[in-house]
Amino acid sequence: MKQTELLAIIEKMSPKEKVDQLLQLAADFYTDNAEDRTGPMDNLNINETTIDNAGSILGVSGAQKAIDIQKNYIENNPHNLPTILMADIIHGFRTIFPIPLALGCTWNTDAVEEMASISALESSVSGLHLTFSPMLDLVRDPRWGRVLESTGEDPYLNSVYAKSMVKGYQGDNLKEDVTKVAACVKHFAAYGGAIGGRDYNTVDVSETTLREKYLPSYQAAIDAGAKLVMTAFNTIEGVPASGNKKLFRDVLRDEFEFKGPVISDWAAIKEMINHGVAANEKDAARLAIEAGVDIEMMTTCYDKHLLELIDEDAKYMDLLDEAVLRILELKNDLGLFENPYRGADPVKEKEVILSESHRESAREIAEKSMVLLENKEILPLDKTAKIAVFGPKATTGDLMGAWSWQGKFDEVITIAEGLVSKGEHVSVSTTNYDLFENTAESLVDAKELATTNDVVVLALGEADWMSGEAASRSDIKLPQSQIELFKIVRSVAKKVVVVLVNGRPLDLTDISEADAILEAWFPGTEGGNAVANILFGDVNPSGRLSMSFPENVGQVPVYYNTENTGRPYEAAPEEKYVSKYLDVSNYAKYPFGYGLSYSSVSYDNLALDKEIGEIEDTIKVTVTVTNQSDRLTTETIQVYTRDLVGETARPLKELKAFKQVELAANETKEVVIELETKKLAYVHQDLSWAVDAGEFNLMVGPNSRELKLAKSFSLR
Amino acid sequence: MKQTELLAIIEKMSPKEKVDQLLQLAADFYTDNAEDRTGPMDNLNINETTIDNAGSILGVSGAQKAIDIQKNYIENNPHNLPTILMADIIHGFRTIFPIPLALGCTWNTDAVEEMASISALESSVSGLHLTFSPMLDLVRDPRWGRVLESTGEDPYLNSVYAKSMVKGYQGDNLKEDVTKVAACVKHFAAYGGAIGGRDYNTVDVSETTLREKYLPSYQAAIDAGAKLVMTAFNTIEGVPASGNKKLFRDVLRDEFEFKGPVISDWAAIKEMINHGVAANEKDAARLAIEAGVDIEMMTTCYDKHLLELIDEDAKYMDLLDEAVLRILELKNDLGLFENPYRGADPVKEKEVILSESHRESAREIAEKSMVLLENKEILPLDKTAKIAVFGPKATTGDLMGAWSWQGKFDEVITIAEGLVSKGEHVSVSTTNYDLFENTAESLVDAKELATTNDVVVLALGEADWMSGEAASRSDIKLPQSQIELFKIVRSVAKKVVVVLVNGRPLDLTDISEADAILEAWFPGTEGGNAVANILFGDVNPSGRLSMSFPENVGQVPVYYNTENTGRPYEAAPEEKYVSKYLDVSNYAKYPFGYGLSYSSVSYDNLALDKEIGEIEDTIKVTVTVTNQSDRLTTETIQVYTRDLVGETARPLKELKAFKQVELAANETKEVVIELETKKLAYVHQDLSWAVDAGEFNLMVGPNSRELKLAKSFSLR
Repeated sequence: MKQTELLAIIEKMSPKEKVDQLLQLAADFYTDNAEDRTGPMDNLNINETTIDNAGSILGVSGAQKAIDIQKNYIENNPHNLPTILMADIIHGFRTIFPIPLALGCTWNTDAVEEMASISALESSVSGLHLTFSPMLDLVRDPRWGRVLESTGEDPYLNSVYAKSMVKGYQGDNLKEDVTKVAACVKHFAAYGGAIGGRDYNTVDVSETTLREKYLPSYQAAIDAGAKLVMTAFNTIEGVPASGNKKLFRDVLRDEFEFKGPVISDWAAIKEMINHGVAANEKDAARLAIEAGVDIEMMTTCYDKHLLELIDEDAKYMDLLDEAVLRILELKNDLGLFENPYRGADPVKEKEVILSESHRESAREIAEKSMVLLENKEILPLDKTAKIAVFGPKATTGDLMGAWSWQGKFDEVITIAEGLVSKGEHVSVSTTNYDLFENTAESLVDAKELATTNDVVVLALGEADWMSGEAASRSDIKLPQSQIELFKIVRSVAKKVVVVLVNGRPLDLTDISEADAILEAWFPGTEGGNAVANILFGDVNPSGRLSMSFPENVGQVPVYYNTENTGRPYEAAPEEKYVSKYLDVSNYAKYPFGYGLSYSSVSYDNLALDKEIGEIEDTIKVTVTVTNQSDRLTTETIQVYTRDLVGETARPLKELKAFKQVELAANETKEVVIELETKKLAYVHQDLSWAVDAGEFNLMVGPNSRELKLAKSFSLR
Repeated sequence: MKQTELLAIIEKMSPKEKVDQLLQLAADFYTDNAEDRTGPMDNLNINETTIDNAGSILGVSGAQKAIDIQKNYIENNPHNLPTILMADIIHGFRTIFPIPLALGCTWNTDAVEEMASISALESSVSGLHLTFSPMLDLVRDPRWGRVLESTGEDPYLNSVYAKSMVKGYQGDNLKEDVTKVAACVKHFAAYGGAIGGRDYNTVDVSETTLREKYLPSYQAAIDAGAKLVMTAFNTIEGVPASGNKKLFRDVLRDEFEFKGPVISDWAAIKEMINHGVAANEKDAARLAIEAGVDIEMMTTCYDKHLLELIDEDAKYMDLLDEAVLRILELKNDLGLFENPYRGADPVKEKEVILSESHRESAREIAEKSMVLLENKEILPLDKTAKIAVFGPKATTGDLMGAWSWQGKFDEVITIAEGLVSKGEHVSVSTTNYDLFENTAESLVDAKELATTNDVVVLALGEADWMSGEAASRSDIKLPQSQIELFKIVRSVAKKVVVVLVNGRPLDLTDISEADAILEAWFPGTEGGNAVANILFGDVNPSGRLSMSFPENVGQVPVYYNTENTGRPYEAAPEEKYVSKYLDVSNYAKYPFGYGLSYSSVSYDNLALDKEIGEIEDTIKVTVTVTNQSDRLTTETIQVYTRDLVGETARPLKELKAFKQVELAANETKEVVIELETKKLAYVHQDLSWAVDAGEFNLMVGPNSRELKLAKSFSLR
């Protein structure tokens, strides 16, 4: 459909019909049994007509259900408009992939794109048109539960993933390719900056930081064609995102040239009353429509008050028409006028969803996402060793994480199941291990198993509700009972391998005496198999942290790309008057980019193709890497730069490029990585992005701490 | 001297002589023995001529020494200019008063002014002309060691103290009154916002927060006439303060209309090289002089490179002349042209310094500053009770804190000495109690004393080097050995009163089973007497916290004047989707304004003289307070407001007025507090300060949590 046709439709729509297009309601308004709707309807004080006409629906699933809803919607709608079915498909639909923070640790854009592509396929056959993903909030505070949904702390790495996810979800031809879904960039902006890591809390960052650190990943997804943008719950400079004209009109629309609609997060327009910037729902509606928020999720400030505003001032009719046009354009971009059911297919649904090939992908991606944090010559395990596996995360299907509403516990391969399927002498405890309490029985069992086996695989971690939305923790250690369990096991076992299942960087001080620690994250449906493949060495671990692990919570925030201070720690950590703590170093326990494998890889012969470049240029970085082991390994070569003198203080190191290479046993490869100098731009005092002439350091290595090789170059 | 005369001097000065005026060197360049100077001279690569002509000197003390230096300086100077002698006199010169954070807990501006006045008197007879005080950095993170030097977390309370301190130091006629010293506002700006509470670290705050929360206290001191402003070590929006033109030219000079000179903090100009915004010292000099920094402390970027810059561009001569004029004006404001020695007086020095009356003031102010955190019906102690006093802070003179270079340990009344002088049966342990280690001997002693006495007074806390500059801690608990000591004592003692000596809010979870906790801070020279007077009830404690104590470090930052979020905790703390932690409340353990006394005071009959006011108005708040005890008490009545709907999210409560009243035994008083509505202004999106028409809540009570009485009013 052409824009003129859309405009013609809008021409014919009544003001109330237009307003209804801006409303999004959740699936419970669309149950088959009309009586079930009474509760939600009463809560919002809306009637059946409004429900029938609300412009989009949130959280429906199931192909037949989707078809029925769409059919009914179109029939009811005076202009036979289609609805859009949206949902939170964050890291897999029914086949659950690792959480985004784990995906961030793959450093593998193909894997991330594949995750998004399979999520789109399963979602689309189930009738969905759009997913509220990717979440692109930069995260620096592990207390915040939603770090789980982010790919990490680095603006560049997040931006790379942003593009892969949008591509995976949307493909190249969203309109025609019904196996795809539209992507939604969230949460605009800087939601991850919540003070104290407390979810929904005030965000207070400088505008230069906002622009340089927080906005690039959103912008990358927008540049990649993402169709929708969601507002954040937080304020920026005291103004809630959902009423933030500067953020949405000036930055998102004018600067980033985003043309699609903006959706509020759940109830976020009405919540401006709580924020204290709106006196009532009408006021909230006014602020939101002026800011350019088009779709209101699950509150009815627009539905109840936009017509009043229009009565008072005709300019609101223009704003309404703008919003409706953007919503109809999104429907059109999805081809819903021509093909309102898109991929919804009750037959295919049964074949496609949780297929063997999807499980295989989920397993492979989980393997790539796990990070080996410690290994004191114990891993890989011998398949013939006597191994006991127990602990609160050993036999549970709770490996999927908070955002996996279609995933089912009983479809998950547990860690114990994975190990049993691979090892020859794996004992699985049948005793119940609780997450928060050791019983007399479990302690006896633990000691018994620890003393009678060669190796203990102790599976520890968080429950799914301990990270994710509204799951901030002031204490980022393992639960105290698990620390005690570890200590008891450690005191009697020969070897202890800890497998961690969790959604955030943890303070791991208390388990530092483990012989090995594998960070498995919430690995998803195939988690147990992935753990087993790594522990037994069928897969050489390759995950690298995309978010730093602090030494303790008192060191938070700890991230790798800090600026130098006037009194730098690195140069003289023992001196008194340097920027440091008295009781802990400035360094992360496990830094950004860090992760072990079963192979040692050497870096040699770093060379640049030029030492003096132009402002707009490409520098070829060459490095020779050698696998010094007898097994295949995957190495992620990381390239960092430092702008030695800037108009503002520049980070000591910033990731600017990376390349993942496979190295056969004992193989040497010369790797060339292209560094486009435009990546060296930063936000100046006048808020413009620019690359400065001058000197730069270039560092190459396996993680942000061990930068083994360094060169300088300059731009002129 | 008139400005025209100063300009005439400048006219005659050579460029190099002008540049020298901008240099400040420390006292070790002015030792009597020329050989001792070689080290410092070599470090800075300067010669005797530069030393002789440097415009001001830092850290000299002693009247005769000051006179000699001044005499020599004037004789040597080609224009017979006087030098200025500056030093860090932060909370007392030789008579040490409580640390500023403790002063903040007095809520008593007379006390704070008296502290400053006595500090000025002792400093001035000792030959000083200017003190680097008050420090007015808003503090919200107890990990930062310099919270000790701030009066706390509240912009309004800090502003009130700012004025008192400037008045106490400078008096009404600085030029003539030689018992006064000039005040220096520091650290401009927002130094207290160091990320992670790590000293010297990057500061990243929004401009609205900078202006609304951080700048008001500096501005209050400037409005009160403070003569000098010091740059902060940190960056703001990536630009180090010492090269921050926007901050110093636009805000400090143009907006705040500050006319005096600006001084860099120690080496802060040169440190711009470390920050990575200056390539070399010349570059650093250029940035600093352009930003309007007049005096360079302890580095020689100006001295070495300003002449070069002037050779290249004449505009730097104008900037230099400006700077010299401001420095000469300061000298003139101090009357140094007419009376170069001011109050320096080797005879008076002996009488005045650490006089009995100064000790008395120090004791009274310390009493007012201590905060009774817990009291389970044990305090005040009976003077006839059998009391044992021990612990690492019991018999030490280390009660003065980090900024007390003239104070002497052996002039301090220890806690044990104070108690012995008041109580009839006080046993002081002679066993050594270390701050970080319990010995077999000390533990035996502790148990013995705990079991054989009615009450243990256990003195715990920090060493002086554990808070203050370069003393950030990631762990804000008491040292582990002290926690263990407490637990052992608790397990055997009848009653345990903990007296805390420390420089920051601590996590006190581990000593929550104490029968009483008195936060004595670093109380200064008369600390022990003040503690004894409170514990025995000769003084009814009246201190109220000016900085919140967190439940734990994972809850940091916790401060009282937070905004509402969209999903407020207070309304529904048990619900899932509210802004909170899973494992700790959002509330401080001990909130801003909190402190117990030995009296219960009731609040009744809150009334406002009007319910509708004008934008510029005064509202009279009346409340009846009744002392329900049989002893004299001091009550601090606190008035908070909330702007219900703002252009930006407004804090749930903000201190806007307070009044301290004495109530005799069982006395009732009707107290009237005037609230000027101009205090309700806040920073709008366009960065202007304005008061909005609309509804406000007004709350009155004894602390920021227990706001017992509330009324509403509106402005039109």
